Amino acid sequence: MENRRNGRKILITNDDGVKSKGISALTEMMRPYGDITVVAPFEAMSGMSAALTIGKPLRLTELKTEEGLRIFACSGTPADCVKMAMNQLFADSPPDLLVSGINHGSNASIASLYSGTLGAAAEGTVYGIPSIGFSLTSHDRNADFTAAVHFGKLIIDKFLENPPKADTYLNVNFPASDMTEIKGIRFCHQGRGQWIKEFEERVDPYGFNYYWMTGEFFNLEPANDDSDHNLVEKNYISIVPHKIDTTDYDELSRLGKMWKFS
Amino acid sequence: MENRRNGRKILITNDDGVKSKGISALTEMMRPYGDITVVAPFEAMSGMSAALTIGKPLRLTELKTEEGLRIFACSGTPADCVKMAMNQLFADSPPDLLVSGINHGSNASIASLYSGTLGAAAEGTVYGIPSIGFSLTSHDRNADFTAAVHFGKLIIDKFLENPPKADTYLNVNFPASDMTEIKGIRFCHQGRGQWIKEFEERVDPYGFNYYWMTGEFFNLEPANDDSDHNLVEKNYISIVPHKIDTTDYDELSRLGKMWKFS
Repeated sequence: MENRRNGRKILITNDDGVKSKGISALTEMMRPYGDITVVAPFEAMSGMSAALTIGKPLRLTELKTEEGLRIFACSGTPADCVKMAMNQLFADSPPDLLVSGINHGSNASIASLYSGTLGAAAEGTVYGIPSIGFSLTSHDRNADFTAAVHFGKLIIDKFLENPPKADTYLNVNFPASDMTEIKGIRFCHQGRGQWIKEFEERVDPYGFNYYWMTGEFFNLEPANDDSDHNLVEKNYISIVPHKIDTTDYDELSRLGKMWKFS
Repeated sequence: MENRRNGRKILITNDDGVKSKGISALTEMMRPYGDITVVAPFEAMSGMSAALTIGKPLRLTELKTEEGLRIFACSGTPADCVKMAMNQLFADSPPDLLVSGINHGSNASIASLYSGTLGAAAEGTVYGIPSIGFSLTSHDRNADFTAAVHFGKLIIDKFLENPPKADTYLNVNFPASDMTEIKGIRFCHQGRGQWIKEFEERVDPYGFNYYWMTGEFFNLEPANDDSDHNLVEKNYISIVPHKIDTTDYDELSRLGKMWKFS
C-alpha cells in the first residue's frame, strides 16, 4: 500500500448519500491510497441506476476541506455526482480512480441494473476512469463494515496492479458476515433474477390508492451456479466485471441474417 | 399484419410522458397488432435510465378505456411504469410484447445507458417479455413520425416472426429524415461516445451557483465504423440488440487468472 504523496487522485461517490456510514467507511479505507474527493448525493438515491437530472437545476455544496480530503454534496443522482465532479472539480486533470459505495444492500444479480452505486461506476467508466463499486449485503444503517474494509483494501491493491480494461468496471459484493466466516474472493458472472410482489397498495385519507415499492428478490439461477448472488449467499465475496457496451453480438449476427427487409 | 382479434396483449410506455406526440404515434402504429395498454409517466422522464422510485409512493391513474385500448399515467419513472403494469394490470397473464417510445431524441451510442425509453425495455426483458424501444433523432415536440411509423411496422413484423432471445431487447433509432431519404435498416453495435461540456453554471438571485445539465455529444467511433450513431448519421435506421447480462466474460476470465489472493 502506497501513501498519498504519490499524488494519486481518487473520486468517491455512492447512492446512499454523503452522510451514510458506508461512504465514511470507504473514505477511511481509501485515504492511504491518495488524495480523496468525495462528491455524493445530499439524500439517499438508491435505485437510481445511471439516471441523470434533466429539466431541474443542480447544486454542489462544499462540506469539508482538509489535507488530502475534500467532501462535496450534490443535489442530484450518483451519475450526476460523477458528471459534476468531472466538469467542476476535475476539468483540467481527471481522477486516477473512482470508487463507489460502500452500498448498504446487495448489488448482485439484477440489482446491478437498478443500482445507483453502479450507475456512478458506469459513469466513471464512460469518462475513461478505472472504476469499482462496493456493496455490503445488509440494509442496516449501522451495518458493520469491518470485513468489507479489510477485504476491500486487498481488492484495491489488485485493482491498482491490474485494472480492468477500458469500458469495463467492477462490481464487488460482500456478504454481511464476520471476517472469519468469509470463505474467499471469487470472480463470477451477474446472476439472473427479478423482483416479485413489488408494490404494497394503500389508500390515502382522501380515498385514493397509492403504492409503495417493496418486493422480494427471486433468484433465477440454479443453486449450484457460481453467480454473484449465489456466491455471496455461500459467504464468498463476488467480483463481476460489467461492460459499458451492452451489445449482444451473437444476436446482432443471428438477427442480422434472419431479418430480411425487401 | 394480423388484427387484434388474435388476442395479442401489448404494453406501451415511454420516457417523454403520456401526453407526448411520440407515444401517440406509437399507439396508433401498434393498434392493428393487438390490444393496447399504455402505462406511461405523467411527466417527462428523460435520462432516467432504469431508475426506480424508492422511498416515495407512486400513483396510477386511468385516463382512457375503449375497445382495444386503455391508457394509464403513472407518477414514476419508465421502469416504474413497467413494474406497475406488471403488478397491477397484468398480474394474471403477462403482455406478449413491450414497445417503448417513440422517443423524442436519439438513444444511439452511450445515450442507451441513460435512456428511460430503454430502461423500460430492459425492465420488460427482466420480466421475460419480448421488448423493443424506438427513438427518433429529433428533440422537436412536434417532430414528424411518419417515416418512423412506416418503418417501425416493418420492424415489428420481423420482431414478431423472429424475436430476440430471452434477456436481450432491441434499440431502434430512426434518423429525422423524410421517408425517401432513408437508405435502409441495419443491425449494428452500440457506438462509443460521451458527453462533454455538460453543465451551464448560473448564479441565483441570492448569489449561489446552480447548474443546468446541457452537454454536447462527442462521438468516439471512427467515421467508417458501422456503429448505431454513425449509421443514423448516414440516414440508416439502426437496430442494436442489448443484453441484460452485462458481465464482461473475457475480463472475468483474464482478471480471474491475474488476481491472486493469498
